[in-house]
Amino acid sequence: MSVTPATHASLLTIFGATGDLAQRMLLPSLYSLQAERLLPEGMRILGTARSELDREGFAQLVADSIQQRIPAHERSEEALRGLLERLDYLPASADDDASMAALAARVQALRAGDVLYHMSTAPKFYGPACQALAAHGAAGPGTRVMLEKPIGKDLASAIAINDAVARAFDEERVYRVDHYLGKEGVQNLIALRFGNALFEPLWNARHVEQVQITVAETVGVEGRGDYYDDAGALRDMLQNHLLQLLCLVAMEPPARFDPTAVRNEKIKVLRSLRAIDASNVATESVAGQYTAGAIDGAAVPGYVEELGRPSRTETFVALRAHVDNWRWSGVPFYLRTGKRLPARSTEIYLQFRKVPYSIFGGAAAADMRPNGLLIKLQPEERIELDLMSKTPGLDRHGLRLSQVALDLDFHQEFSSARRRIAYERLYLDAIEGNGTLFVRRDETEAAWQWVDAIAAGWRDAGMLPRPYPAGTWGPGAAISLVDRLGHGWRE
Amino acid sequence: MSVTPATHASLLTIFGATGDLAQRMLLPSLYSLQAERLLPEGMRILGTARSELDREGFAQLVADSIQQRIPAHERSEEALRGLLERLDYLPASADDDASMAALAARVQALRAGDVLYHMSTAPKFYGPACQALAAHGAAGPGTRVMLEKPIGKDLASAIAINDAVARAFDEERVYRVDHYLGKEGVQNLIALRFGNALFEPLWNARHVEQVQITVAETVGVEGRGDYYDDAGALRDMLQNHLLQLLCLVAMEPPARFDPTAVRNEKIKVLRSLRAIDASNVATESVAGQYTAGAIDGAAVPGYVEELGRPSRTETFVALRAHVDNWRWSGVPFYLRTGKRLPARSTEIYLQFRKVPYSIFGGAAAADMRPNGLLIKLQPEERIELDLMSKTPGLDRHGLRLSQVALDLDFHQEFSSARRRIAYERLYLDAIEGNGTLFVRRDETEAAWQWVDAIAAGWRDAGMLPRPYPAGTWGPGAAISLVDRLGHGWRE
Repeated sequence: MSVTPATHASLLTIFGATGDLAQRMLLPSLYSLQAERLLPEGMRILGTARSELDREGFAQLVADSIQQRIPAHERSEEALRGLLERLDYLPASADDDASMAALAARVQALRAGDVLYHMSTAPKFYGPACQALAAHGAAGPGTRVMLEKPIGKDLASAIAINDAVARAFDEERVYRVDHYLGKEGVQNLIALRFGNALFEPLWNARHVEQVQITVAETVGVEGRGDYYDDAGALRDMLQNHLLQLLCLVAMEPPARFDPTAVRNEKIKVLRSLRAIDASNVATESVAGQYTAGAIDGAAVPGYVEELGRPSRTETFVALRAHVDNWRWSGVPFYLRTGKRLPARSTEIYLQFRKVPYSIFGGAAAADMRPNGLLIKLQPEERIELDLMSKTPGLDRHGLRLSQVALDLDFHQEFSSARRRIAYERLYLDAIEGNGTLFVRRDETEAAWQWVDAIAAGWRDAGMLPRPYPAGTWGPGAAISLVDRLGHGWRE
Repeated sequence: MSVTPATHASLLTIFGATGDLAQRMLLPSLYSLQAERLLPEGMRILGTARSELDREGFAQLVADSIQQRIPAHERSEEALRGLLERLDYLPASADDDASMAALAARVQALRAGDVLYHMSTAPKFYGPACQALAAHGAAGPGTRVMLEKPIGKDLASAIAINDAVARAFDEERVYRVDHYLGKEGVQNLIALRFGNALFEPLWNARHVEQVQITVAETVGVEGRGDYYDDAGALRDMLQNHLLQLLCLVAMEPPARFDPTAVRNEKIKVLRSLRAIDASNVATESVAGQYTAGAIDGAAVPGYVEELGRPSRTETFVALRAHVDNWRWSGVPFYLRTGKRLPARSTEIYLQFRKVPYSIFGGAAAADMRPNGLLIKLQPEERIELDLMSKTPGLDRHGLRLSQVALDLDFHQEFSSARRRIAYERLYLDAIEGNGTLFVRRDETEAAWQWVDAIAAGWRDAGMLPRPYPAGTWGPGAAISLVDRLGHGWRE
């Protein structure tokens, strides 16, 4: 399929421009892009939401959010002025067609070329908003749309949203956000895998014993209880972030670092995931829900207390996934994510197989640990390679060995680089029309299909989340899940 | 061949006990072993040399050498007393049979079990001394002998020495010293290769582009001019140290870390070395001799000035060696060693092949550097793995990559471990009867055979050492040697 090459957006229109995500992430990201002069010359930014603000009111909201979110030493009057000059605002709501007509007219008036829409609202508005833009002539060629997660809450609702959006925007003009893909550390995983000849010969079932992907949060549900209780850890985190990381770890080398080539490889991984359903959900998955406990010495309430009502929603999930293809056959991919865990941590860990045989005999053989590669994404970005080396000293009866770590801390190595918000990268790419770091429809639907089977399996098997005290690494069953194959979570 | 297992030596007899090596290395090593209570209980140490010292005189010389060589905070009265109590001394000379008879009698009087002899004299005395010990009944079962390098100055003289020693000591009782094998870093190379499953899949011609082994000295010949002028860099350094390092890098995994298994693998490497002789010496080797120059800003004289007469001896040699077997076919092993080079450095560097293809396109492809593994032995012990990672920041048009180093400094990692003299390890092994880190007769002779062909090639081709100013990395031809295959010395 040939696609007209995108040109830089002349207008960015943000739906939900007064919302929480906008204030925490989107507006500060735009500010940083402005400060580094990375926004296209003349590109306008049109905010829209239900709030009855005018241009000045929105500009004030933007200025306040920059003030709060950007550290003082990174703020400059000039950059702020540059950003504010780009702004416009028009109240609108997808269920009020007159307001959408007015918005479409404003879009057509402001644009001088391509338009990028960004849907940062409840997902139920994505379809209606896109269709209204189309109906009012503002969704044709030269327009594209970013969609925030979640795209639905299961396969059926995802298809409904995707179908509705598709009536207004061809797939190659739809940019589904998984903000993990905007993280430096995640892109570095791609750089490591395909910028180094070292790893590819080792990156397969012959040499890898197990893979672990952990996204651990210390926070509870706080204000998001109602949304979260409807979703749970499986839908809120695993369906998107953890499966995207799994895809990047497991995929074959794409022919090019471009949207089609990369996403073609990711979808192959998703389609190779062995189903976890009612037949095996009891052995291959663990769901948990936190009870009252303590984190960093401070008492925290349980999930049910935070929510204010009884709930069967899981706040923790651990899975043993299998990618059934030549490269990965037999290698367990352990995935786990949860709230109220002891530490905030996002990491990918590959444990390599043991040496086939120890030439060093008794004592050294007992010291021997398998090699491992850690790619840490949060809280710090770091790579660590665990090796065995000689223990210094005059060992009798052969050599003694110790585990040591070769490591690299990116913030030390590139100390001049400030930590970026993932949206800086994602906005820049979407503004420039590069979809490589966005999720394609088939990926999101394949992920839902796999995750739906797990949720259905839990339901059919009558599996309820097991309690775990806040501040622990989930239910004990999550340990047994890996222990059964002689593995252990890296902690 | 079944060998009576060695028991710990009850007596160590050092020939050349008043010499330079003894004072700089051997006596301080024995002191450290004493301080760590690693010497066998009751083991006596008998010094011998031409000098007409008595026991007290030798004890004074030992105490002086400890005083000079061991840092104050590592000295203890108790350890020194413990060492001095072990000492005895008897003057003797291999060309004075009466003195050797007296020495043999003293050995028999002092021993309470196995005896370890250590020949730290001019090599021409090894045969006569060993045969005198045998003639006087002090070289039978339960005795063994350490031989210092050089074993001869070519294959013929090495065979003559080895034959003469063999008339008194079976090969399994002969321990040829290459003190590089006693270095922690060299043993760590073995630990790295065979304690980690990661490296073996990469450790071959399919993944390794080139190997470099550098032993660079900043010193000139100083007082050793007469000896050195007879030997040159090829015989003095390359025949032993560099070829031993090459063997440890290139050998197949031995079945056990024991003398026979390890040395069987090393000899296979030496026998697989492609000959460099008159036919290819001009393209595969470079010899150099330093002229006046400067090191660290201080002017230093040329070799001929230091020596005080004209000379055609090489003080620098660089080779492109090939190990012709399945594992290494086609991989150049660049070896170089020299005096008056800009820095003291001993290192082994494996450069891996480039990625077969860059998925990142233009700019990133230009940034791409091959992966490398550096095993640094001197001046510090360090491992470094060179990788490509993402350059932090919002690169346009795909990712940008930068080279980064994962590294491990052993002195930092194991900060409690003091730096040891290689002889501590070697003495301990020889006292305990473990020959793994010593060189077998067939190895030393295979190394001479290979090196002799190079020396003969230089002679036959009329190749003279090229001049290089002190403080530079040898003659320009050493650069061309690697450049010809598109390589470059790691500097």
